[in-house]
Amino acid sequence: MRTQVLGAVRAELGERGYDELTLDGVAARAGVHRATVYRRWRNVGGLLADVFEATGDDDWQPQDTGSLRGDLAALNHESQAALTARPSIAAALIAASFRSEEAARGVRRLWEDRYARCEVIVDRAVRRGELPPHTDARRLLVAATAPLYHQLVLLRTPPDPDLPDQTARTAVLAASAGAFVKSPPDGQVV
Amino acid sequence: MRTQVLGAVRAELGERGYDELTLDGVAARAGVHRATVYRRWRNVGGLLADVFEATGDDDWQPQDTGSLRGDLAALNHESQAALTARPSIAAALIAASFRSEEAARGVRRLWEDRYARCEVIVDRAVRRGELPPHTDARRLLVAATAPLYHQLVLLRTPPDPDLPDQTARTAVLAASAGAFVKSPPDGQVV
Repeated sequence: MRTQVLGAVRAELGERGYDELTLDGVAARAGVHRATVYRRWRNVGGLLADVFEATGDDDWQPQDTGSLRGDLAALNHESQAALTARPSIAAALIAASFRSEEAARGVRRLWEDRYARCEVIVDRAVRRGELPPHTDARRLLVAATAPLYHQLVLLRTPPDPDLPDQTARTAVLAASAGAFVKSPPDGQVV
Repeated sequence: MRTQVLGAVRAELGERGYDELTLDGVAARAGVHRATVYRRWRNVGGLLADVFEATGDDDWQPQDTGSLRGDLAALNHESQAALTARPSIAAALIAASFRSEEAARGVRRLWEDRYARCEVIVDRAVRRGELPPHTDARRLLVAATAPLYHQLVLLRTPPDPDLPDQTARTAVLAASAGAFVKSPPDGQVV
């Protein structure tokens, strides 16, 4: 039952947006009794919090393409596809985070979880010798992904098919130049 | 009169947020007749559109510190200060862009204008010989600024005093490694 209800929340958000999200609409779409939805989720904030909770419960892992640049590009292609889908649940959840404290907390936790899962990309690159051991994985991952979100979510520029690869390549060049080294062997902060 | 009214819109947005923004509240705060505000701006969307219009009419220019890294760091410090001010008008305007079409258009135009004005940073670096002539200014500027907005606006991480400089430095390293070269002299795309 939770699966149907949360699926209905995502569909309503994607198609109609946060402003139109109601427990009655979600119940009707999910084919579940209104009273059940009200009892379990109480309000729109409760529904949103549970959507984020459920999204974080999946077994998503970043692709393993065999190279740092390939892994980062694959990640960006996934994000670009999610953000430019019509309707885009990802874009709707981000928009909701500017409307509701529950959604803001949910988005924050979800990003944190996704970036933590992506650290394996950096671990693999270190093991392959593509990156120095003391690489700050989080900073590298943010540098490799931020321009894509910046363009699509904040600047609202039309999607550029080259952007996922370009952004990945830029981060790899910066990483190779030592941009994300935490503390080099000689102890001097770069 | 416009100055008072738009000042009141910014103050109301910063302190109370988009949901609480009303023409009556703005008129009262500005000490201007309600009828005048209704006649000239019609609705909240009209007020927001004019706030963005006025913000774009200023004579803001990026600082000239004498180096690419210094210029980009100064830009990021300015953005971080604007986004972490309490209340933050910048953060309120970005949040409003997820609520209203007028605000979304206004934000888009304002970003476009700001990035265009910042291209002089790249021109100066090219003249100083810090960057190759065929550098894609916009891509460099987005790479140098996106992680800061990503962290503060989307990821909502607490402000990190090192972030403005780190992000500037990363972009400079990537630029020096050729990340933003449009088309090198030999005609081969890097």
